[in-house]
Amino acid sequence: VKIGVFDSGIGGLTVYRALRRRLPGAGIVYLGDTARLPYGTKSAETVGRYAREATAFMLDQGVESLVVACNTVSSVALDEVSEASPVPVIGVLEPGVARALETTRNGRIGVIGQPATIKSDAYGRSLRARRPEATVLGAACPLFVPLAEEGWTGNEVARAAAALYLAGLKAAGVDTLVLGCTHYPLLSETIAAEMGPEVVLVDSAEAVAAEVARALDPADAAKRTLAGESAESEDRFFVTDSWERFREVAARFLGRRLESLEKIDL
Amino acid sequence: VKIGVFDSGIGGLTVYRALRRRLPGAGIVYLGDTARLPYGTKSAETVGRYAREATAFMLDQGVESLVVACNTVSSVALDEVSEASPVPVIGVLEPGVARALETTRNGRIGVIGQPATIKSDAYGRSLRARRPEATVLGAACPLFVPLAEEGWTGNEVARAAAALYLAGLKAAGVDTLVLGCTHYPLLSETIAAEMGPEVVLVDSAEAVAAEVARALDPADAAKRTLAGESAESEDRFFVTDSWERFREVAARFLGRRLESLEKIDL
Repeated sequence: VKIGVFDSGIGGLTVYRALRRRLPGAGIVYLGDTARLPYGTKSAETVGRYAREATAFMLDQGVESLVVACNTVSSVALDEVSEASPVPVIGVLEPGVARALETTRNGRIGVIGQPATIKSDAYGRSLRARRPEATVLGAACPLFVPLAEEGWTGNEVARAAAALYLAGLKAAGVDTLVLGCTHYPLLSETIAAEMGPEVVLVDSAEAVAAEVARALDPADAAKRTLAGESAESEDRFFVTDSWERFREVAARFLGRRLESLEKIDL
Repeated sequence: VKIGVFDSGIGGLTVYRALRRRLPGAGIVYLGDTARLPYGTKSAETVGRYAREATAFMLDQGVESLVVACNTVSSVALDEVSEASPVPVIGVLEPGVARALETTRNGRIGVIGQPATIKSDAYGRSLRARRPEATVLGAACPLFVPLAEEGWTGNEVARAAAALYLAGLKAAGVDTLVLGCTHYPLLSETIAAEMGPEVVLVDSAEAVAAEVARALDPADAAKRTLAGESAESEDRFFVTDSWERFREVAARFLGRRLESLEKIDL
């Protein structure tokens, strides 16, 4: 089985990593539209057009399932992608929302993400649609993205930033915290240490991977795993610009060097 | 007199600010190509094309002098812009280089900038071309950009990041440090405190503004100043996308709200 993972940039590699662990027998095609990032500051029309172009590329690659590992596309253009795609499309938002609602005991849920995600209140709207009595508190943590890309995930800079960003959510007594940006799982230890042991973190990348695994034909997913075979060597990685930077940062995300990285035009 | 300031985004506002202080009688047109940032990861051909489009727009606005407040364009496409422009073009690189060479006593010059700037060694090449015996040490400080945009210029996060990034330059005994990115002047107090009182910072934005003032007809520049008149109210600010974010961050850079912000297509 072949799964496509699409992101505006590199953050979706946390979703790739989670899928890789959970579905060793699947082949994964990754596409980072690095030439046109960030999507978060662009209009919904523009984001929709970019997402349709990425979807067409992924379908050409023969993917049987498409993961939209980009919060912006998941928030503003998921319907558009689903309509353009004959294969199942899974966004990064709903699986995290579902898991947060399963997790929370006190109904107070924190969401952290990039400024555009928090401003859009996409998580809040989805959480309240399913559970109107939930209290949702958002906090934008923009520095977490460059910290993750720099590999500064557990040093003094990361700890000081986490303390500043998370103070309000901590004081508000949330018992569940959704990592609403695919970069943030790289800082999960620092975030967890700051929030304390009573707060459960919801890793959207993990939640998405679990959702993809659930949606797949179980026989299909198990096939190669049983044969002891990993499809990792067949994975393909595509970017639309600046591969050198991608390669450097990808090594921090994956803990290994990406040998095959292909540049394409969308 | 009307001066154009062009940047890929918002960083050039430090150059705007320096020009504003130095030339109160000049009118300034600012253009941030926010839809297509960052330039640092794009190919020289693409950057050259963007820069030519921006130049054409600026000339339509009637500028009599054009400041390229973008390190990437200044490094890879300044000749191209100069050739396309009938009015004088001033890049952000050479004025900082000239000032660093005037400043240094021990010939050891540090340069900090974004990864693409440091990797290109554009400052090092220019410094060594003018003074072959100079020792130039570069350090990429990518977090300084989001720190400046977040307004975290003097807090614990900024201090911890500065300590990590600057340790090598400090140990190497540089006596002059070029701020080779237009965002960095916002962190100059934190950077200066980290480097210690023996190290002189070269603020590229200030150096560019001084260069523009020098190049102008002195009579022209003095005209309105003598009349006690400031042209600030006539300044125009153009962006190509995401004005809301620009407005927020601009308030941190300028200490005031930008009332007139116009969105254009290039």
